[in-house]
Formats: sequence, structure tokens, C-alpha cells
Amino acid sequence: MTTKQQNSEKIKVFALGGIGEIGKNMYVVEAGEDIFVLDAGLMFPQEEMLGIDIVIPDITYLVQNKDRVKGIFLTHAHEDHIGGLPFILKQLPVPVYGTKLTLGLVEAKLKEAGLHKSTQTHLVSAESVLDFGEYKVTFFGTNHSIPDSVGIAVHTPQGVIVNTGDFKIDQSPIDGKHTDFGKIAELSSKGVLCLLSDSTNAERPGMTGSEKSVGYEIDNVFAEAKGRIIIASFASNVHRIQQIFTAASKTNKKIVITGRSMVKVVDIASDLGYLNIEKDSVISIDQMNNYAEDRIVILTTGSQGEQMAALSRMAHKAHKQIAIRHTDTVVIAATPIPGNERSVARIVDLLMRTGADVIFGQRKVHVSGHGSQEELKLMLSWMKPKYFIPVHGEYKMQKAHQNLALQVGVEAENIFILEKGEVVEFADGLAKRTGKVPAGNVLVDGLGVGDIGNIVLRDRKLLSQDGILVVVVTISRASNQIISGPEIISRGFVYVRESEELLQEANKLVTEVLDKCMQEKVKDWSSLKSNMRDSLSHYLFDKTRRRPMIMPIIMEI
Amino acid sequence: MTTKQQNSEKIKVFALGGIGEIGKNMYVVEAGEDIFVLDAGLMFPQEEMLGIDIVIPDITYLVQNKDRVKGIFLTHAHEDHIGGLPFILKQLPVPVYGTKLTLGLVEAKLKEAGLHKSTQTHLVSAESVLDFGEYKVTFFGTNHSIPDSVGIAVHTPQGVIVNTGDFKIDQSPIDGKHTDFGKIAELSSKGVLCLLSDSTNAERPGMTGSEKSVGYEIDNVFAEAKGRIIIASFASNVHRIQQIFTAASKTNKKIVITGRSMVKVVDIASDLGYLNIEKDSVISIDQMNNYAEDRIVILTTGSQGEQMAALSRMAHKAHKQIAIRHTDTVVIAATPIPGNERSVARIVDLLMRTGADVIFGQRKVHVSGHGSQEELKLMLSWMKPKYFIPVHGEYKMQKAHQNLALQVGVEAENIFILEKGEVVEFADGLAKRTGKVPAGNVLVDGLGVGDIGNIVLRDRKLLSQDGILVVVVTISRASNQIISGPEIISRGFVYVRESEELLQEANKLVTEVLDKCMQEKVKDWSSLKSNMRDSLSHYLFDKTRRRPMIMPIIMEI
Repeated sequence: MTTKQQNSEKIKVFALGGIGEIGKNMYVVEAGEDIFVLDAGLMFPQEEMLGIDIVIPDITYLVQNKDRVKGIFLTHAHEDHIGGLPFILKQLPVPVYGTKLTLGLVEAKLKEAGLHKSTQTHLVSAESVLDFGEYKVTFFGTNHSIPDSVGIAVHTPQGVIVNTGDFKIDQSPIDGKHTDFGKIAELSSKGVLCLLSDSTNAERPGMTGSEKSVGYEIDNVFAEAKGRIIIASFASNVHRIQQIFTAASKTNKKIVITGRSMVKVVDIASDLGYLNIEKDSVISIDQMNNYAEDRIVILTTGSQGEQMAALSRMAHKAHKQIAIRHTDTVVIAATPIPGNERSVARIVDLLMRTGADVIFGQRKVHVSGHGSQEELKLMLSWMKPKYFIPVHGEYKMQKAHQNLALQVGVEAENIFILEKGEVVEFADGLAKRTGKVPAGNVLVDGLGVGDIGNIVLRDRKLLSQDGILVVVVTISRASNQIISGPEIISRGFVYVRESEELLQEANKLVTEVLDKCMQEKVKDWSSLKSNMRDSLSHYLFDKTRRRPMIMPIIMEI
Repeated sequence: MTTKQQNSEKIKVFALGGIGEIGKNMYVVEAGEDIFVLDAGLMFPQEEMLGIDIVIPDITYLVQNKDRVKGIFLTHAHEDHIGGLPFILKQLPVPVYGTKLTLGLVEAKLKEAGLHKSTQTHLVSAESVLDFGEYKVTFFGTNHSIPDSVGIAVHTPQGVIVNTGDFKIDQSPIDGKHTDFGKIAELSSKGVLCLLSDSTNAERPGMTGSEKSVGYEIDNVFAEAKGRIIIASFASNVHRIQQIFTAASKTNKKIVITGRSMVKVVDIASDLGYLNIEKDSVISIDQMNNYAEDRIVILTTGSQGEQMAALSRMAHKAHKQIAIRHTDTVVIAATPIPGNERSVARIVDLLMRTGADVIFGQRKVHVSGHGSQEELKLMLSWMKPKYFIPVHGEYKMQKAHQNLALQVGVEAENIFILEKGEVVEFADGLAKRTGKVPAGNVLVDGLGVGDIGNIVLRDRKLLSQDGILVVVVTISRASNQIISGPEIISRGFVYVRESEELLQEANKLVTEVLDKCMQEKVKDWSSLKSNMRDSLSHYLFDKTRRRPMIMPIIMEI
């Protein structure tokens, strides 16, 4: 045994995303020459990332070691675990492994990106054993807010490296599939060298509670509603959508599905057998008028207050086919993700003004998909890992998870609170920090991946605050004379019609600066430009206390 | 009595701010010819108000009726009740009435704005009776998160109009001043025609709890801390600051005060006798090193994660004199105002990374200053108003407050959920909605008050998303020839050094468009501009999926 461990290759574990943040999960197990990538998520841009569409992990290290990457192994089909694939696979065309529903949703995504033909996908189940010579990859079923979620185990001669994926412990799961305790016990008895576990709810005491409890409340709401029911949920929460279909069936209601992602997920999930929908229970929007109000359920996207989603359009009276009525019951079956509180509150306000009955926070129409403290401790107790790395969460959640691990007996020096890119290396069953691989945010704006940096973001920030002022002048270099201009044009600075005088004065000022420079025969355009910029900047700040971006342009003839 | 009521003048009540929103409270009671303005607050800009500093109410109606305005009567010195004064008094130079601490803080504000000499201020107390002929204005003491808070009563022949101001019912107030139950009973026995009451916590069950409970927890934290204590609070929460001083005194600690507004409030409040500070308990930053770590308390601003506040600078390691140490205990004695969650979470994360012990949400170091459901019902039961207008809150809070009023027996048809500007008119003791006065948001950006409208905001939004591209060309009208250019300059669009090819191609395209127009002898510059704009816009969207603002400029010689 000792000999074997001494001969065994080094193992490195690190995160390229998902720690110190919520989103873009990507964990890497590098075992000898083989690299196993676990998940490939995206993150939605933070406030200060103006104009950015999404954020993905920096995969420089993986691209540099492309030939060693055995594949991307997926835990489940949420955007923060699979959303980076369309961008990442372009630079890193490796096989993708996932369970049935996960692959179903991934394949739809790859099709949209034109990558479905070039990408090798491999269907796995909780029973699969993937053999990579010295290393094996296995899976175990977990409970989360999307079906077919799994944890992943990489078996190495030094022991097993386990990533739980997102999980809670649901004692009454909607699909009847419990957390795979047997497999977890097996891993534990083999010896878990290192556990990576979900920290999202590490600050929350107790147990999270079963998705089924939401079902009881949905049943009540459906039974009480006097008119139509409009219910918003995450499209990907297939369990909740199942409960909505079940409640509709019990109360003899028909369901209208609206919102692009909702239509897509319901299609795929029911095709693959993850949604049990009764025949004739879904109707089209056009058929709504054939039924009494109290027989209609409208299932929609937009539970996070997303501006372009169907619920938001209804609230703003901008939905082409659905107008909220005061007899409607509107249910937001989700809680706002941190950062979305204001936009959700705004939608709720608009909905309430229609006179509809709006049900959100005050009734139990949502539970989290992530385990709370007692569940996280259970996972730690079952796995009995030698080393522990809290992942999937902000720093404070990692710290809280560290405390839980200490409580169940993990040694303090065996817990690693990592930053993105920080490497923990295992040799002969012993771990230490050994350095860093490149890691960070890659910003996606339109077709550009990673071409937006700090300079562009700083300019967008400046432009968003006080706008821009362009000053153009045509100068003859030969005669040192102004041929045309200066002309001043502004955007986002002042309302031009009410500020004519200000802009005329500014023009006069620039003209004086230019005249003086021409007389002094200044030939250095850059100092001419900075003269124009400085004098304008001072003048405008003095008059308005605003600092627009000033862009002097000299046209030379 | 009946005769008197029939002869009495009409009374109008409306809000110019503070309903359907959180912030810029301003309520108006118009009794016959006299106009009484209650509070004059500001609101912090919403996300989409790019570059805006603050928002104040639209006071068009008051300015049009300037001579009838008897004064602005203040309930307390929070920014959402007094912050609009420096802007509003410029257009509406009327007397200002307030209690001692309120006026103390207002006067400092007016001094900064150069308005202290031109403004008449009148000191009032809970005992004052202001006589305006047919109408009287009186006050009653309340509990809130700033001392010297009062409710205001306007006495009219039809009955009393009462505005509670912000309040909770604190059974163990820090300053020993209880809610003025006697005065409230007196108002009730006179007959409250209409009550305007604080809806902030109308959705929260139970009682809010005493500020004193925070004191116990602060005491515990101070006793336990092994090193320095850094504690952030709202500067205006004088009660909490008192408790911090008291806890410091009990544990023999010295206090360093940092942050401009904290220094200002502590100065004014202690000068006016609202803060009881022991001699020698405050030291300067320079003196800190003369004391052991466990004898230092640093009292600071920044509890809302404000970027420029002292706590944020410490967290970002950008504070000139104070660096957080791993032995420090950092206490954030406030909860995030909705919308500030992300910035507070970010600060907490940064603070935790220093290794310091960070105390925020998980211990009871904050209670709200606004009463919860049971307190709101008590106020309604005491006042027994005939009519009720829930104020100070978003629509959903107004609605929740309406429900509470129904529970305590106010008639459904006597409750008015108003929008800003909507007028309720009382004649002969009976109320009805009668129309609307102008009301809305006035945006303040630098020195400009109300000069930023939708066009400017839309441009800032566009600029913030994909930046701007300026295309300049100098053309000779006489010869229909391009003399210089086109030149293309961009900001906030792409990183120029990595996009040379794209911009060169764009230049080529514009040159072709221009050449064609020159050949066709197009003399209409505006169609020339739109040709340039359209072709560039299509080309760039095709290549980048971005839509920068495109600004074509033609210089003519």
C-alpha cells in the first residue's frame, strides 16, 4: 500500500470558477497526465460590468494543456454549471459527459451555437464507471432543483476525489429518487481523499426542507384561486413544474406555457420522460378564451424580474396576448437571487397595482435547492474526507462551511479555503498548496469573448455617468489656420435644447484656445488637444459640476 | 357644529413624494387658503438613473402657490425627510419648522448650501402650538432611529389631520422619551379626520423591538473582542451611537470617529445635548498607537457598503490611516436598505478575507426604526381616524397597511391608497378623490436640477452598453470632395489595439459610402449621415453583435 502510494502520480485540485463568487462553476482534478474538468458554468455580469452579456471562467490553463483534458463532466443542467460550454468548447473541443436530462438540455444549447456536430457527448448514469486507465470516474445521484443531478467521484491510487455538485437531502423527492446513500457509503469505505462540497447555504441553520412542501402550498393556491392563475418559476426547476402540472390536473385546469426557455425545458423534459404531463392538459394561448377563467393556468418565466421575460412584459402591460386581470392570482414561485431584489420588488408592485392577488415571499411557494447546515454536516459525516475544500459560494459561505467541517471533525489544517486558480497538490496522500494557475473573469459581449478589458469598462462607466462631448475642428497645417469648426456635439451630458447658451460659451472658449495655439504656431496636435480638453473640462465642471468625457478631434488638411 | 362644518373651508391632502416608493417624503395639507408642507426629503437614484446624484419631488404646484405656503414642517432629520431642502428652498423660500436636533442638522445642511442666512427657521417642541388663524399645527413625540422625532397634527374645523412621521413604539427608549400617548389620546378625543401613517414595515408581523436590545448585543461584542473594534452605523442613528459610547465607557475603551457625516452628526448631537459623551473618551486617529488594541473602538460610516465611505476604503485597503488587522472585530450595525445587498455583501467578503471577525446579520446588532404590524395597529386604534391614508412606502406596503386598518375597524371606503399627486378633498367632514396635482421625479445631477430628462438618460444607457463610435469627415461643398478623413474614433466599444482590423474595415466601408454619395452629388448632409450610420451599424452588429452609438460628423469647408 505504501509502495503504491509512493509510486502514484501527483494529483492537483483547483477551481477555475465558483469560489469567492456565485456562478461559473468549474473545478479541475489533474491526476498525473490526465485532466478531468467538472462543470463549465457561466455567471451573470455584476453591476459594474456595463454592457457585458455573460461571464465565463478563464480557461487558459486548460487550453495550454488541451491534449491532456479527458473531458468535461457535468453534475447538472443549471446555467452556472453548463452555460459556459458554447464558449469553452470552441477553444477546448473535448468530450462532454452528462446524465440524460443534463445532456438533453446541453445538446439543445450546442445546437443553437452550431456546435452539436463537432462535440462528442457521452451519456452517463449514476451507475456508470468510466475507465481512464489508472483513474476512474463514477457518479452518485443527488437531490437538487433539477432532476438527474449527480455528484462526481474521481478515483485515484491516493484515494477518491469527490465533488458533490449542488445538492440538498430531500427525504420526499418528487421523482422518488433519493440521494444515493449506498454509493456514498461505498466511496467513504474506499477512502475519500478530498471532498469538494456545495457551500451556498452554509450560513443557514437547520434543514432546507423538501420540494414537496412547495407542492402542498401550490395545491392550496390552486384550490383557492377564483380566476386565472399565472405562475412564474425557473424554467429549469422541472420538479416544481411537475408539481404545477399535478396541481392543475387535480383542479381540472388547463395550462398555457409562455416564455421561450419554459417552452424549451418543458419540451425536452417531457420528451425525455422527466415530466409527466397528462394528455390535453396543455393548451395554446389562442385557446384560452374557450375556457372559464378558473380553468386557466399560465406557466411563465420571469421569476427573477428579468426585464425581457414574459412575466415582466405582462406586468408592464407590454405582453401581446396576456393582460393581467384583477381576478387573476399571480404566483412567483421563487426567491430573488441576491442582486435581483429590486427588480423583483418592482414587478410585484406593478402586478399588485392591477388589483390581482400576488403571492410571493409571504407563502411557502419556494424552497431552496441547496442543503442547509445540517445537510452539509451529514454529507461530511458520510464521506469522512481526509481533506475538505468548500466550493460553490462566496468567501463568507466558504468560511461558514469550514466551521461546519470543523464541527464534524475534519482537521483544521486539512481544510482549504481557496481562491480561484489556487492549486492544492496531493502526493502520497498528503496535501499542500503549491501555487496558482491563471484564473479570472472572461467577459462576453456579443460575439466578443474576452476582448473587453478594464479600459473599455472604465470608458463605459464614464460615459454612463456624465455622457460625452465631442469637439471637432479642421485645421490647415500648411497655413496654421482653422478651416472649419470648432463644432461641439454632446450625448448624455445635458439636454441640448435647454443648454444652448452653455454649449455656445463652450464653443467660444475652445475657439479662443485654438486661436491662441494657431498664433503661437503650435504644431503638436496632442498638446493642442489637451489644451482643448483641459479648458473645456474646467469650464463645464464649474458650470455644471459634471465631468463628461471630452473627445477632441483634429481633422488636418 | 353642522353649521360650522358647512361653513368650513375645503381641505386637500396629497403626497408629492414618499408613496409608491421609499424616499423623498413630502406630504401636503391644503386647508382653505393655507398650505402646510410636511417634510422635504430626497431619494437616492434608482439603477436606471445613470449619473444622477439624487432625486427630489416635483414641487411645481407649491411654487405656483408660493404665497399660500405657510412653511415646511419637519418630522425628523433623516435625508428622506430633509434632504430635499437645499434644492427646494431655492425655489420655495418659506419658513422651516423643526425640533432642536432636526433644526441643528438642517442648519448645517443649509450652511453648506449657502442658504442659512436667507432661510427663516423656527424651533418647535412637542409642546408647541403654532397658530395660523383658523388652523393650528401641533406636534407629538415619537420613537424612531433618530432622537427628537415628532408626529404632526394640523387642526382644522373639520377635524385633525395627523401625519405620524416615521415611528415605532419603543417601550424602553434610550433617551427615556416614550411615545407621547397623552397627546395622541387628546388628538383622538378631538376627532382625527384623517391619519397618514408610516407603512415601511406593514408587511412585518409582530413588534419591531426596542433599540435597547441592540445595546445588549453591542455590550456583549465589546466585552468579547480581543483586539480593536471597528463598528459601522448610520451616522444619524444617534441612539445607537450613544449605546456604542456607553459600551466603550463600560469596557474602558477609547473611541476614534471617522467618516465625514459621522464626525458632523456626533458634533452637532453632542453640542445640542443629544449625545452624552464622557470627557476624554474620544481620541484622534494619531493617538491610536498610544493604546493597546483592545482599548480601541473605531466608529465609522459605510454600513450600506457605500463606495466612498470610510469602511469601504478600509475593506479595499485604500484608507490612509486604518488597515484592518486579523485581530480586529468588525461590526456592521445596520441591515442593507433594499438595493444595497450586493455592495454590503462585497464589503463583508473583503473584510472577512483579512481574517478579522466580521459581525453583521447573524447577531442582533440592528433593529429597525419603523414599527411592525402590531405597532401600526396600535397607532390606528389610538388615533381612531375617520379616514386613513397609508404613506411612506411602496405600493405593496401601502396595501399591507390598508389590510391592518381594515382589521382595526377603519371602513374600507375610508381608506385611500394614493399615487403621488392624487388629491383627497375633505368637505363637511366627508372625503373624496378630486384630481391630481403635478408630481414626479426631479433629477439632480451636479448643479443641474431637473435638466436631465429621458433623452439624456436614454443616451447614457446606450453609451454604457456598447460605447460610442465617432466618424468625422471634412467635405468641400463646392467641389463635392472629401478633403480629410473619414476618421473613426471609439470609446467603450472595443479594445482598440486588438480591433485594428475591424476599425480599418469600418473605415473602408464608410469611405465607399462617402465616395458613392460624392459621385452622386448628394448635397443633403442628413441623408449622408444616415447612410454612414446605417452601413456602419449593420457592419459592426454583424461582426460583433454590439450596437455602439454611432455619431457621424461632417465638417464642411
